[in-house]
Amino acid sequence: MFDFFLPKNEKKLKASLRNILGFSPKNLSLYKQAFRHNSIAKEIRDGVRDSNERLEFLGDSVLSTVIADFLFKKFPYKDEGFLTKMRSKIVSRDHLNQLSLKLGLNKFLSQSTDPGMRHSSMNGDAFEALIGAIFLDKGFYSAQNYLLNRILKYHVDVEKIIETETDFKSKLIEWSQKEKKEVQFRVMNEPARTGEQTSQRGSGNDRQFAIATFVDGEVMAEAQHFSKKKAEQLSAEATCTKLGIA
Amino acid sequence: MFDFFLPKNEKKLKASLRNILGFSPKNLSLYKQAFRHNSIAKEIRDGVRDSNERLEFLGDSVLSTVIADFLFKKFPYKDEGFLTKMRSKIVSRDHLNQLSLKLGLNKFLSQSTDPGMRHSSMNGDAFEALIGAIFLDKGFYSAQNYLLNRILKYHVDVEKIIETETDFKSKLIEWSQKEKKEVQFRVMNEPARTGEQTSQRGSGNDRQFAIATFVDGEVMAEAQHFSKKKAEQLSAEATCTKLGIA
Repeated sequence: MFDFFLPKNEKKLKASLRNILGFSPKNLSLYKQAFRHNSIAKEIRDGVRDSNERLEFLGDSVLSTVIADFLFKKFPYKDEGFLTKMRSKIVSRDHLNQLSLKLGLNKFLSQSTDPGMRHSSMNGDAFEALIGAIFLDKGFYSAQNYLLNRILKYHVDVEKIIETETDFKSKLIEWSQKEKKEVQFRVMNEPARTGEQTSQRGSGNDRQFAIATFVDGEVMAEAQHFSKKKAEQLSAEATCTKLGIA
Repeated sequence: MFDFFLPKNEKKLKASLRNILGFSPKNLSLYKQAFRHNSIAKEIRDGVRDSNERLEFLGDSVLSTVIADFLFKKFPYKDEGFLTKMRSKIVSRDHLNQLSLKLGLNKFLSQSTDPGMRHSSMNGDAFEALIGAIFLDKGFYSAQNYLLNRILKYHVDVEKIIETETDFKSKLIEWSQKEKKEVQFRVMNEPARTGEQTSQRGSGNDRQFAIATFVDGEVMAEAQHFSKKKAEQLSAEATCTKLGIA
């Protein structure tokens, strides 16, 4: 394997990074550290090693912020539950490992030669550490720009990820038709006040809907939310989980 | 209570925010949303409400990134485990609730008038949402500047937080002296190779120290790390937890 980290190969490392990043790194040592796995790192002081773990800690946050901002703007009518789920899918260890391999970061990763010391999450860790290095080297907006224009645009199929983010009410109804079961959603709060169509828990603006899901007359789950639709989804989701069809 | 959110009070709201933030907000509606608790929010579309929850999701990440960066630079010789712990203390819900009250954000928080709907974590949530609003209104560096120069500098005693971040080996030894117990730390790996002072697991650079903690001759916990000091700390920490003295 070509060793990018020998001093004589510094020019080549810089050129390769420029290819991957789309800009010239200023402080090369940050990137070298981003690719240094703990298994070959040396102790610097008080048990702390010059591995990529500190950069990974930093990069993980930067990545979360950039994706949070991206999703916040892309989905103005989705609630924080949806945004949180979408983000955790995008930044999942599995997904980051795949990304890292696609980008060829594994070629840079300097790690122990002992195969027993290797594991695939090293690749995702290195990706996060790389984001940390960009953040320190070039600032938040360079890291954001790199992630949006080099990673999300080409390597993350957000639409496909959404598809797998299912509508649990539909899922449950579909299942019930196949299995010939009867599914019902019932509002469980106290009776509606005059003029109201549905009953809600609490008073005034504070009322939350409590929706129970029944399968063949048996209560499977109950969920509450200020929005009736949302309460139905939560109740359906809990039911799907219970039935093992989530 | 003075209602900042009536249109006629907009000037007053802007002036109050300028006092708290140290700059003039551009997009006032973001800040209004940051202080709008779900209990009084209205549905905008598809069950999503115009409450501060989406901003809280975003602000939570921005806060994490700013604190990660701050700790990364403040503690160049601390490992990611320490940084993670320190951050979670700084951004704990309890701590954010206190912060929010100190800043008087509760005066802005527009919430349900039903006392049963109130809980103190609303204050911490509003603080995170405020960070999200600043991030969207003025960008990452304004949010960072606000947090470092208005919050951390005056309201967060980092040194005190570190003190409570204990040295578990010392803690355990102190306990043993008081309780008249004998504590020992033993390297548990295979015997040292010639010329080595301590034995380590693995080969070459991959070796990890396995350290067991004994109390009165009984194994309490074992932990592994590339650094011997760190392995001792981890092993001592697990022992403290087991003994209920952590």
